[in-house]
Amino acid sequence: MKRIAVLTSGGDAPGMNAAVRAVVRKGIAEGMEVYGIRSGYAGMVSGDIFPLSSRDVGDKISRGGTFLYSARFPEFATLEGQLAGIEQLKKHGIEGVVVVGGDGSYHGAMRLTEHGFPAVGVPGTIDNDIVGTDFTIGFDTAVTTATQAIDNLRDTSSSHRRTFVVRVMGRDAGDIALWAGIAAGADQIIIPEEEYDFKQIVATIEHGYETGKNHHIIVLAEGVMSGDEFAKKLKEAGDTSDLRVTDLGHILRGGSPTPRDRVLASRMGARAVELLKAGRGGLAVGIHNEELVESPILGTAEEGALFTLAEEGKIIVNNPHKARLDFAELNRDLAF
Amino acid sequence: MKRIAVLTSGGDAPGMNAAVRAVVRKGIAEGMEVYGIRSGYAGMVSGDIFPLSSRDVGDKISRGGTFLYSARFPEFATLEGQLAGIEQLKKHGIEGVVVVGGDGSYHGAMRLTEHGFPAVGVPGTIDNDIVGTDFTIGFDTAVTTATQAIDNLRDTSSSHRRTFVVRVMGRDAGDIALWAGIAAGADQIIIPEEEYDFKQIVATIEHGYETGKNHHIIVLAEGVMSGDEFAKKLKEAGDTSDLRVTDLGHILRGGSPTPRDRVLASRMGARAVELLKAGRGGLAVGIHNEELVESPILGTAEEGALFTLAEEGKIIVNNPHKARLDFAELNRDLAF
Amino acid sequence: MKRIAVLTSGGDAPGMNAAVRAVVRKGIAEGMEVYGIRSGYAGMVSGDIFPLSSRDVGDKISRGGTFLYSARFPEFATLEGQLAGIEQLKKHGIEGVVVVGGDGSYHGAMRLTEHGFPAVGVPGTIDNDIVGTDFTIGFDTAVTTATQAIDNLRDTSSSHRRTFVVRVMGRDAGDIALWAGIAAGADQIIIPEEEYDFKQIVATIEHGYETGKNHHIIVLAEGVMSGDEFAKKLKEAGDTSDLRVTDLGHILRGGSPTPRDRVLASRMGARAVELLKAGRGGLAVGIHNEELVESPILGTAEEGALFTLAEEGKIIVNNPHKARLDFAELNRDLAF
Amino acid sequence: MKRIAVLTSGGDAPGMNAAVRAVVRKGIAEGMEVYGIRSGYAGMVSGDIFPLSSRDVGDKISRGGTFLYSARFPEFATLEGQLAGIEQLKKHGIEGVVVVGGDGSYHGAMRLTEHGFPAVGVPGTIDNDIVGTDFTIGFDTAVTTATQAIDNLRDTSSSHRRTFVVRVMGRDAGDIALWAGIAAGADQIIIPEEEYDFKQIVATIEHGYETGKNHHIIVLAEGVMSGDEFAKKLKEAGDTSDLRVTDLGHILRGGSPTPRDRVLASRMGARAVELLKAGRGGLAVGIHNEELVESPILGTAEEGALFTLAEEGKIIVNNPHKARLDFAELNRDLAF
Repeated sequence: MKRIAVLTSGGDAPGMNAAVRAVVRKGIAEGMEVYGIRSGYAGMVSGDIFPLSSRDVGDKISRGGTFLYSARFPEFATLEGQLAGIEQLKKHGIEGVVVVGGDGSYHGAMRLTEHGFPAVGVPGTIDNDIVGTDFTIGFDTAVTTATQAIDNLRDTSSSHRRTFVVRVMGRDAGDIALWAGIAAGADQIIIPEEEYDFKQIVATIEHGYETGKNHHIIVLAEGVMSGDEFAKKLKEAGDTSDLRVTDLGHILRGGSPTPRDRVLASRMGARAVELLKAGRGGLAVGIHNEELVESPILGTAEEGALFTLAEEGKIIVNNPHKARLDFAELNRDLAF
Repeated sequence: MKRIAVLTSGGDAPGMNAAVRAVVRKGIAEGMEVYGIRSGYAGMVSGDIFPLSSRDVGDKISRGGTFLYSARFPEFATLEGQLAGIEQLKKHGIEGVVVVGGDGSYHGAMRLTEHGFPAVGVPGTIDNDIVGTDFTIGFDTAVTTATQAIDNLRDTSSSHRRTFVVRVMGRDAGDIALWAGIAAGADQIIIPEEEYDFKQIVATIEHGYETGKNHHIIVLAEGVMSGDEFAKKLKEAGDTSDLRVTDLGHILRGGSPTPRDRVLASRMGARAVELLKAGRGGLAVGIHNEELVESPILGTAEEGALFTLAEEGKIIVNNPHKARLDFAELNRDLAF
Repeated sequence: MKRIAVLTSGGDAPGMNAAVRAVVRKGIAEGMEVYGIRSGYAGMVSGDIFPLSSRDVGDKISRGGTFLYSARFPEFATLEGQLAGIEQLKKHGIEGVVVVGGDGSYHGAMRLTEHGFPAVGVPGTIDNDIVGTDFTIGFDTAVTTATQAIDNLRDTSSSHRRTFVVRVMGRDAGDIALWAGIAAGADQIIIPEEEYDFKQIVATIEHGYETGKNHHIIVLAEGVMSGDEFAKKLKEAGDTSDLRVTDLGHILRGGSPTPRDRVLASRMGARAVELLKAGRGGLAVGIHNEELVESPILGTAEEGALFTLAEEGKIIVNNPHKARLDFAELNRDLAF
Repeated sequence: MKRIAVLTSGGDAPGMNAAVRAVVRKGIAEGMEVYGIRSGYAGMVSGDIFPLSSRDVGDKISRGGTFLYSARFPEFATLEGQLAGIEQLKKHGIEGVVVVGGDGSYHGAMRLTEHGFPAVGVPGTIDNDIVGTDFTIGFDTAVTTATQAIDNLRDTSSSHRRTFVVRVMGRDAGDIALWAGIAAGADQIIIPEEEYDFKQIVATIEHGYETGKNHHIIVLAEGVMSGDEFAKKLKEAGDTSDLRVTDLGHILRGGSPTPRDRVLASRMGARAVELLKAGRGGLAVGIHNEELVESPILGTAEEGALFTLAEEGKIIVNNPHKARLDFAELNRDLAF
């Protein structure tokens, strides 16, 4: 393989730039040319493709966001979209592709591979909800930003004996809420993966103030409900405390990546290049037990594939991401 | 004066602890004893008063919030409330008081002085809207936290070509919005002190994208309207961009104070003690042209008083805080 | 077990407070009383022992350093010292001890256990060089602080086309240098675990400038040599670049722990309490493959013990910590 | 004036990029074209000059260092150097120049003006030692970085009851030491502008420990002596404490500029353009009492000039920068 390309897809995450840098530098170290594709699959189809030198990615490792831009592009799910993309790859002499993004973008990588253009997925999202890896690029940074924000809220809530509901991103996964909640010493953590009861939450708030706490912080995962809705239900369940709501929202997506995310992105980007160099595609890179692993994107569970195509085109996730409910348990012990 | 007390009142602000530390250490350096009053005027009335040693304020200069707690206590506006507070001061042998808080809390300081207990106000609030000072304790930290959050949002909005409305605190004053907006390179800043027009705002968004910007960030001051309301009006005025809203809310109130706030708080706290030592009360400390100043809280405009009691008990603010409209102008030049 | 104690020993590390908090809160959750011992084994011997409530550790999770203080106390290696410590434990009714510190402090935990006072070690040090765990408490924070400092130096070195030697802590282990080096995009990383050649280092510097780099950053692990010595040898080997040296020194030991360190410390502290509750001592807690593990401190290699007592009192380390030389290799690929 | 240029000169400082951005954007807003000159006066002479668009300075406001690079270039003090520079300016059609740098670089601005190319100086240096301004661009950031580092050292020194000497930049001016020292709650601050006595310093260390302090932090300004030398003299004067030295060095030069520095740089850069637009050169922009001012670089004291050319070519500084000795006094009161 003489020329490969790299793109970022889906929601952006801190560390995507570090992954792109690693792909470029490792590719060059392996004697290949590396091209960038702007705005994900959209740019592949429109031909927004350009060479990247080692200097072009200088000073990028510490930058948040993605300098290649990202976009969602559902058209790439169609054969027509894929063929249009492949035509552009051919035109630019590109033989393999690294896709940094959520597992939604892995399907595109699978299709490209099937069409004869080996493509490898690298998991980039703050939510940590991608199959095939213990951690995703951007998760540690999002947890860090959330923890710092909750540390700030604790200062002010302590000064006024206030209750704060802090909502953090995580559509289906409570990982950010769990890690940031433990790290910030939250009093309660509410995630979609666990049952909760408003009466019980209110009782715990009261118990906290009764036992001498001068604030009460509840970390709420995005997937549960909106912050305002949650606060309303707390009040309906009898909460009488001085209650405030803050939604950290998109702040968690930005910022300079933490060293952990930079190292993870560097390792994964380099591994993706090694796989392409060996002519292997249709794989996603992951980290398991601190070591890099790769899994077939599509196939049978026995083969270790992330997804299985069942009858009628239904996609089965073979080993779905699970929240660490032991963390939720731990926090209940440590909060009081 | 042999024994003084210090309290924090109103909304908390980063640097309040540094001010309290300065009062304690400077008081001790001047041969006085210093007591803390918990939870503002409420604690004064309830007698929650205790001695503070130099060691008690060790390591406090870098802490956000206020370890003395703060609270609003409207009852202190009544003579009855004031007399109850004074009784407690007498009981603890306290002869003078430093009040760190918003200018609402200055009135209490004035009353205490009139009753024979010299009290001095120190301006602590993130909003920077207190008369008699160029800067308040906590403002620089709030601007810093806001700027970092907007820097984060810029990363993610650039990656996706998004428009972000970022709402920052500032009920009546656009200072945080102006400073953070310029510092973060916001595309537009909307403050209560300036007229705005939704058609024009939308036109500016469009102009930005047309001239090659890959994001558009609008910093909105709390006093204007809610973020959701603002977004709704943008859409009604024809905005077609990918629009998101984030309200930074109470995050701005917390966090370790910036060096600038710590130095300001240290200087002001020490000056308040010097004034009390000289037997002077009914004053508020401020900073003007980088030098400390003090102003009578109540009196005539000619005397330089902050407030004048007009007929029928109406209070006139003599030299109201003004937003820096030249900053708004500057940002319009630099945004594009 | 009804009453346990916790101490911090050896060099301090960010996250020690989080570990102590976890021991206290988890102990109370398990129905035990928890005491603190000030200044490590020195305080045990002198009887500086006091009860800790849940509130006493409130707001401690985010604080750097150790509020229990730490100290080296070689006298505890003697039987006399141990007996003096045990007398104090008895006097205070303490039945088990958690020791947070380097593996030097594990030996004291072993001795206490042998004398009938089960003690459990928790690995706290920034160097990451403790046997029996993938990561130590404080390492992630030290890497983060180092990376931020190198990011800063990169700004200024880029502006002036300078070569910087940045020395980071790590007496015997290059872990901080490797992680921070990769994270900051260092051009070269020099660690004690790998050979290096000054002629080659100088050639690499020259190669960097020749290929268009505008700075050159070398991360040097403490264990190699001093920064000034290193710079001198570079010059002797022919370096002609504008060379500066910075030793980050003790800055890496302080600061608010990262979320990752806080979570790790919380988990480990809680686990140590569980072990004591089960009457188990002479163990050290570790993390392996993201799950908590415990190992006998002393015993045979077959038992999974960390150390084996060989003939003549020599101590054998059974599974010594190894640097990730694959990281060193990775950085060589990505630096250029 | 239709086309102007901007360069950065001397030691780099955080906020230089923000100043360059302001020059470019304000210039364009005023209908001018703006060129960048790389590597200061060196690039002017060598013709390293290129147009800058509004987009070229997008996202630069938050970046440390200077993307235009900086360099010292003593050859520009000669007529020959100046004429070579002017030839290049002419060649590129440039009619005016903004110089961001230390006051050493103001002299070049003066010469260009005398040769008919109006040039305006903007004070950029972390040391805050430039005449004609209360604050320089970069100073607030350097103080912030220093304060955070000292906060870190306080964590670890408190844990071990250690004495730390922390050396901060500031060749001739103690400003960084004074501000960071007060902000970090240093126990002693040693600056070149004030007398000090080692016996007294040692006595103060002892007094601190005797009165219950668990650490002792001395902030030392670069201009006094090296950290090692200082420590040696402390020991000779009888210090018996556990003493460590850290030199923060070049870390202070880097990092994302604080909001305050970004706002200052934005204002000053824009003002420089206004001056050029009005055809005015030979001036330096400053800030005094929070308002922008400009001063003639060369002239008589009566004219408010920064420098006066005396007989025999000697340069007299008319109103030299002075350290705030009241800050030193304040810290003595608050440290204990």
